[in-house]
Amino acid sequence: MADQLIIFDTTLRDGEQSPGASMTKDEKLRIARQLERLKVDVIEAGFAASSNGDFEAVQMIANAIKDSTVCSLSRANDRDISRAAEALKGANRGRIHTFIATSPLHMEKKLRMSPEQVLEQAKQAVRFGRNLCGDIEFSPEDGYRSEMDFLCRVIEAVINEGATTINVPDTVGYAIPELYGNFIKTLRERVPNSDKAVWSVHCHNDLGMAVANSLAGVKIGGARQIECTINGLGERAGNCALEEVVMAVKTRRDYFNLDLNIDTQHIVAASRMVSQITGFVVQPNKAVVGANAFAHASGIHQDGVLKARDTYEIMRAEDVGWSNNKIVLGKLSGRNAFKQRLQELGVSLDSETETNAAFARFKELADRKSEIFDEDILALVNEESVSHDKEHFAFVSLAQHSETGERPQATVVFTAGGQEIKAQSDGNGPVDASLKAIESHVQSGAEMVLYSVNAISGSTESQGEVTVRLQSSGRVVNGVGADPDIVVASAKAYLSALNKLHSKTERVAAQG
Amino acid sequence: MADQLIIFDTTLRDGEQSPGASMTKDEKLRIARQLERLKVDVIEAGFAASSNGDFEAVQMIANAIKDSTVCSLSRANDRDISRAAEALKGANRGRIHTFIATSPLHMEKKLRMSPEQVLEQAKQAVRFGRNLCGDIEFSPEDGYRSEMDFLCRVIEAVINEGATTINVPDTVGYAIPELYGNFIKTLRERVPNSDKAVWSVHCHNDLGMAVANSLAGVKIGGARQIECTINGLGERAGNCALEEVVMAVKTRRDYFNLDLNIDTQHIVAASRMVSQITGFVVQPNKAVVGANAFAHASGIHQDGVLKARDTYEIMRAEDVGWSNNKIVLGKLSGRNAFKQRLQELGVSLDSETETNAAFARFKELADRKSEIFDEDILALVNEESVSHDKEHFAFVSLAQHSETGERPQATVVFTAGGQEIKAQSDGNGPVDASLKAIESHVQSGAEMVLYSVNAISGSTESQGEVTVRLQSSGRVVNGVGADPDIVVASAKAYLSALNKLHSKTERVAAQG
Repeated sequence: MADQLIIFDTTLRDGEQSPGASMTKDEKLRIARQLERLKVDVIEAGFAASSNGDFEAVQMIANAIKDSTVCSLSRANDRDISRAAEALKGANRGRIHTFIATSPLHMEKKLRMSPEQVLEQAKQAVRFGRNLCGDIEFSPEDGYRSEMDFLCRVIEAVINEGATTINVPDTVGYAIPELYGNFIKTLRERVPNSDKAVWSVHCHNDLGMAVANSLAGVKIGGARQIECTINGLGERAGNCALEEVVMAVKTRRDYFNLDLNIDTQHIVAASRMVSQITGFVVQPNKAVVGANAFAHASGIHQDGVLKARDTYEIMRAEDVGWSNNKIVLGKLSGRNAFKQRLQELGVSLDSETETNAAFARFKELADRKSEIFDEDILALVNEESVSHDKEHFAFVSLAQHSETGERPQATVVFTAGGQEIKAQSDGNGPVDASLKAIESHVQSGAEMVLYSVNAISGSTESQGEVTVRLQSSGRVVNGVGADPDIVVASAKAYLSALNKLHSKTERVAAQG
Repeated sequence: MADQLIIFDTTLRDGEQSPGASMTKDEKLRIARQLERLKVDVIEAGFAASSNGDFEAVQMIANAIKDSTVCSLSRANDRDISRAAEALKGANRGRIHTFIATSPLHMEKKLRMSPEQVLEQAKQAVRFGRNLCGDIEFSPEDGYRSEMDFLCRVIEAVINEGATTINVPDTVGYAIPELYGNFIKTLRERVPNSDKAVWSVHCHNDLGMAVANSLAGVKIGGARQIECTINGLGERAGNCALEEVVMAVKTRRDYFNLDLNIDTQHIVAASRMVSQITGFVVQPNKAVVGANAFAHASGIHQDGVLKARDTYEIMRAEDVGWSNNKIVLGKLSGRNAFKQRLQELGVSLDSETETNAAFARFKELADRKSEIFDEDILALVNEESVSHDKEHFAFVSLAQHSETGERPQATVVFTAGGQEIKAQSDGNGPVDASLKAIESHVQSGAEMVLYSVNAISGSTESQGEVTVRLQSSGRVVNGVGADPDIVVASAKAYLSALNKLHSKTERVAAQG
């Protein structure tokens, strides 16, 4: 019988740590629901003690998710662990994931603690956590660069204290498959009680090998949990990509001989949702979820594919949720067709009111655009759930004009706290003029660190989806707006980002 | 003494096979020059026999490049090989890379040839090629899925005929590092004359393991050449990424113990150039060249980095050409400063005329925009070299207006074959209206398959760079346009794509 491989998704925790990828509570909940639909075994929902916002997000997800285990990260101290346990109270299955660095470099330079102090703190944290939660994961941070003897002592000790999962992170993405696999293998051989815990791998992609390293940890090392993120989101070059590692295990079952719970049909929808919410594009040549991942260009390959599909294909696009039938709805589509399509896309709106609002926007769009693609629908819904919070700023109307030789002009009407404001400005282009008009009244002083346009279904007839990222006194927020008029989409995105800046949710500074 | 690892870049051949990544001759030459600057050992410049355009591109690159070997792909037949040899005549060092499929599936379904016929054709091709060129690379296509005994026979035979490099492709991206490494090892052990050739790896990224597989082919298998592309461009999920594989070998020299010629300082500029020319975005969490690859977001990590750089960094951003000092030029910068910055960015313009034109555009931009970033300069130069061909269509001016509740309107003035045309249309948005206005006169009938906006330096004050991809009777072309006004950038991009469609360079259908 094949062993079970546990998929632990950390899009909402490690993924969210990417500069600019911070998400609102509602966005996190939407992603968590999609992860549940994907049948992810464990969802790391956040780092409860790091801020009130994070606490609330973990709590909301713990209460909403039924099928997956919900996990919170926690430093190795009583306060953090208590907060994590509290946030997870409503979970069907909760897990506390506590960590402390064990590499000489991190202990000396970052923690300024001796190895014995680190060992004591790790034991104490797991003991404390185990009294609050039966499912405790322990990570020796920068584990792969830790000294083997010391690491074995720490792991043996925390398993004795009741840790049920031992995760060995390659925190800086320094590993090589062969070395990492053997590192895990040696640990499992040398730690006397290693069979009392599930072993887990957590790899970063700085040298482009996170997937291969994770799989070597499983195949050579005997780990049975992989920590990963949708689109490989995460600090720096990101984490092991869920979509790649899952499809590798499925496609090469002959080699891995492992079972997975993942329902791969929801992979593409999950990828798009994470990309839309974070504003992080997925490059066309990204494995599994890139637009070209299943496309064949050269004559030779096209011919080969026509003659026998598996000459150039090792996976089927349908299996990960790519659909060829992309035009789905039009002007005459009714409410039921719209709802059904939402379901097929894996989107569940929270209430009838939300569904009605999304459908109204859909009809409005269908009046202007003859073919409505899946991407349009996802954009609609995305914008809907972004805007259903009580917002301070709301878009009303926009007029703009540009002409070669003259300076572009824009007039934007919007509400601020219910009061209508008419703002006017010029700018380098019509988008710039519109945003300057808004800023001239709001005076947020925020710096724009990203302006990005997502091509929705690839043509200018489509809706444009714009992401605006603003930075203000250390906080970074994303705003998203969608409209067939790119200038309007930009203004909406800017207002949406301003709304997020306006609702101040400070994150508590993390431990040094 | 450490062995030398040969870096063989196939951005211009396998990379260009990505749907939508086709490049003009001039664009290919610019990339080839950047690859030479990177000190790539071998540049695969194209597939000379596949079309006249490809032939000319290979020839142009063979004549221009002095330091790198220039290579042309070629099927295993006399005509293809003769064309390749002819195109490479002017090269300082030329290489012919001939291939034929050896996997049961490909031989039976695609080639419809028996193994003995394939063996004969391979031998004959290498014999024929060896008379024209001293440097012959042979690839058994789909080698990794080939039957071991047969593959050994083919490789032994072609080495006997004079093949100097043996490349074993994982054509469909099916390999796993351990298996692929051992596959190469077994081949090298079993082929009696294996020491007479350099062994090479060529991996695709369908399961996210191209880099790790390539490195296992080197470490376990003993290969000494890696085939790769900038940004991992290539069919489907692409090829092994040059930037990742090179930085892995450099960063983990303790494990690989190999020398490389690559000058890593030019990596980021190469990545940007390829991204701009193809319109393929690089996702922020892409290793080495992604915008976030060296960014640190979470409090814990920032703190760690401040305390000791190597707590979270295994490479230095400067070493791959990231520069923190991003604002480089402004209104008052002179021609020399501009030229020097171009040099630092690794851009060499072909003539004084081109430099003057680029500088004029720079001054024009500086009048509208106070801070000129590297990205702006690269966009300028990119547009310059796109537009310096004798073009059929040229942008003159644009006026557009949109207002909530009304249908957006645009008037575009452009020239077609020297004649000025004033075109007008409405549309779903101002961009759509502008493109519809142009199309109403040109009537190309082309389908727009991609519309993408690259965020240049992240703010709406910047230039927007727009890529438009058109498809018409089986041909796919990209147009690029840059302007601070996104509507104008879009119109320029559309005209640039129409110019490419207009200059019909048909590619000969490849062998079945």
